[in-house]
Amino acid sequence: MIVTVTANPALDVTYSVKTLTPNTTHRVIETHEQAGGKGVNVSRVLTALGRRTTAVLPLAGANGIAVQDDLKRAGVTHCVVPGGGPTRRTIAVAADDDVTMLNEPGAAPDDGWWHTLTGVVHGLLPGAQVLVVSGSLPAGLPPSAYRALVVLAHQRGLPVILDSDGLPLTAALDARPTLVKPNGAELLAATGLTDPLEAARALKDLGAQSVIASLGPDGILAVTPDGTWRACLPASFTIRGNPTGAGDAAVASLAAALADAVPWPLALADAVALSAATVAAPYAGRFDRDLHQALLPAVHIEAL
Amino acid sequence: MIVTVTANPALDVTYSVKTLTPNTTHRVIETHEQAGGKGVNVSRVLTALGRRTTAVLPLAGANGIAVQDDLKRAGVTHCVVPGGGPTRRTIAVAADDDVTMLNEPGAAPDDGWWHTLTGVVHGLLPGAQVLVVSGSLPAGLPPSAYRALVVLAHQRGLPVILDSDGLPLTAALDARPTLVKPNGAELLAATGLTDPLEAARALKDLGAQSVIASLGPDGILAVTPDGTWRACLPASFTIRGNPTGAGDAAVASLAAALADAVPWPLALADAVALSAATVAAPYAGRFDRDLHQALLPAVHIEAL
Repeated sequence: MIVTVTANPALDVTYSVKTLTPNTTHRVIETHEQAGGKGVNVSRVLTALGRRTTAVLPLAGANGIAVQDDLKRAGVTHCVVPGGGPTRRTIAVAADDDVTMLNEPGAAPDDGWWHTLTGVVHGLLPGAQVLVVSGSLPAGLPPSAYRALVVLAHQRGLPVILDSDGLPLTAALDARPTLVKPNGAELLAATGLTDPLEAARALKDLGAQSVIASLGPDGILAVTPDGTWRACLPASFTIRGNPTGAGDAAVASLAAALADAVPWPLALADAVALSAATVAAPYAGRFDRDLHQALLPAVHIEAL
Repeated sequence: MIVTVTANPALDVTYSVKTLTPNTTHRVIETHEQAGGKGVNVSRVLTALGRRTTAVLPLAGANGIAVQDDLKRAGVTHCVVPGGGPTRRTIAVAADDDVTMLNEPGAAPDDGWWHTLTGVVHGLLPGAQVLVVSGSLPAGLPPSAYRALVVLAHQRGLPVILDSDGLPLTAALDARPTLVKPNGAELLAATGLTDPLEAARALKDLGAQSVIASLGPDGILAVTPDGTWRACLPASFTIRGNPTGAGDAAVASLAAALADAVPWPLALADAVALSAATVAAPYAGRFDRDLHQALLPAVHIEAL
């Protein structure tokens, strides 16, 4: 079983409009809403892949009810950590090929809430193969909070994937997370280095056992103890669609690979194919199953 | 008691951002949410004025829960009509002096829902002095729906204010609503006439007993059986703020005036002062009490 932690989940709302023009009134053509947050997306993908997963997350208020309703519809097993602040929303305004995001930061949880969350994770670890910790921290928590979860999983001998950015990522590196998965912007922000390979190596030097960077259409760059690879689709493949959640699909794929001890090149090929199949699906956490299988043999793996 | 009907209410969400730039990601600085819809705003203002009012509206789903929580907080008496579709949201993105609106259209209610709403209104009319019917119709209802409410109130001998636009407004005119309150854009859309006075007279010719047009900073234009007036603040008064809900404040003021049989010039002065005091408050349905009282003697009334 793969346990995901989403400390700052959201109700993700997508509005389709013709074009977005500031200072005017828009009639929304289509509204879609679903449970959101990076760990939630990972658990949604794992559920669709037929893997056992449990999403750990706080939920409160009217948005929390809507998130839970969607998790139930999607069949995603979840543990609700009480004491969080009212669940926030994110709004994606989709117009033609543009997406404009409005992200609520989220309210501060009650005192002692992180202790409760840690307790819930602790209780799930005996049945877990991998712990995945994803996304931002809610307001009011120290940036070292994720570090404690990495330590907790290692004490149980479990691999941990940490997919966060900024201080919550860098403050956890010396606890040696099994795998971190920054994207290009997060690599640059964490290291100040513009070359992704140099930046990934720097995060490894700081303690991450493996660094798997998701670089959008440029595929994946993997710096691991067993070698360094670049995995991508041929340049002739253009996947159009919604890139939101593509990185979370890669994390889901990598978590499954860690659980099954799949060799890196095979794991990376699946992560690239599943990410691309997610871009082709309209919403985060969904993927085109046929495309996933069709793309798998096309992924090009290069050892660096 | 003043009964308001809001057939298509919303959870009104306001996001403050620094500037809105399409195709980028924004961190929301401040989130405000409240019960929305024009009739709800009218009842909120009447409640704050110390008038007895009952808001009739459908509520369903997670947004419906949030709307009801806010109505309870604000002390607004309300009757929920069961069988409506999930309550919609509107998003106002406020940046500097710009407001960008994203309006969900709202889901279609169950079959027979309008019959239930009419029954609820029928039950409230014996205790009512004025009926106010405000805003858009939810999907799936015939544009003549509001006409039936006008007829219902007249059968009880009650005055009716209809504040809607498009077909739901024009299809009800031959039932002789006591008062309609279009704004400038709605006047133009309903009549095709660019001159507000000509347009207001045209709506009166079509059946409205009185037409009170709210023209923003240009004040109010009133075409009534007792005379035609223009009411506005002196040009030297500039009220800056959020104009959303200013028209609803005017309706609240006019409903109270109809209930008390206040002469037109006094009624119009209060409507102008209360609208301006609403612009000065940050959210629809709120107003600055001191400003309301201070502006009242400054309103200029001109008989045309």
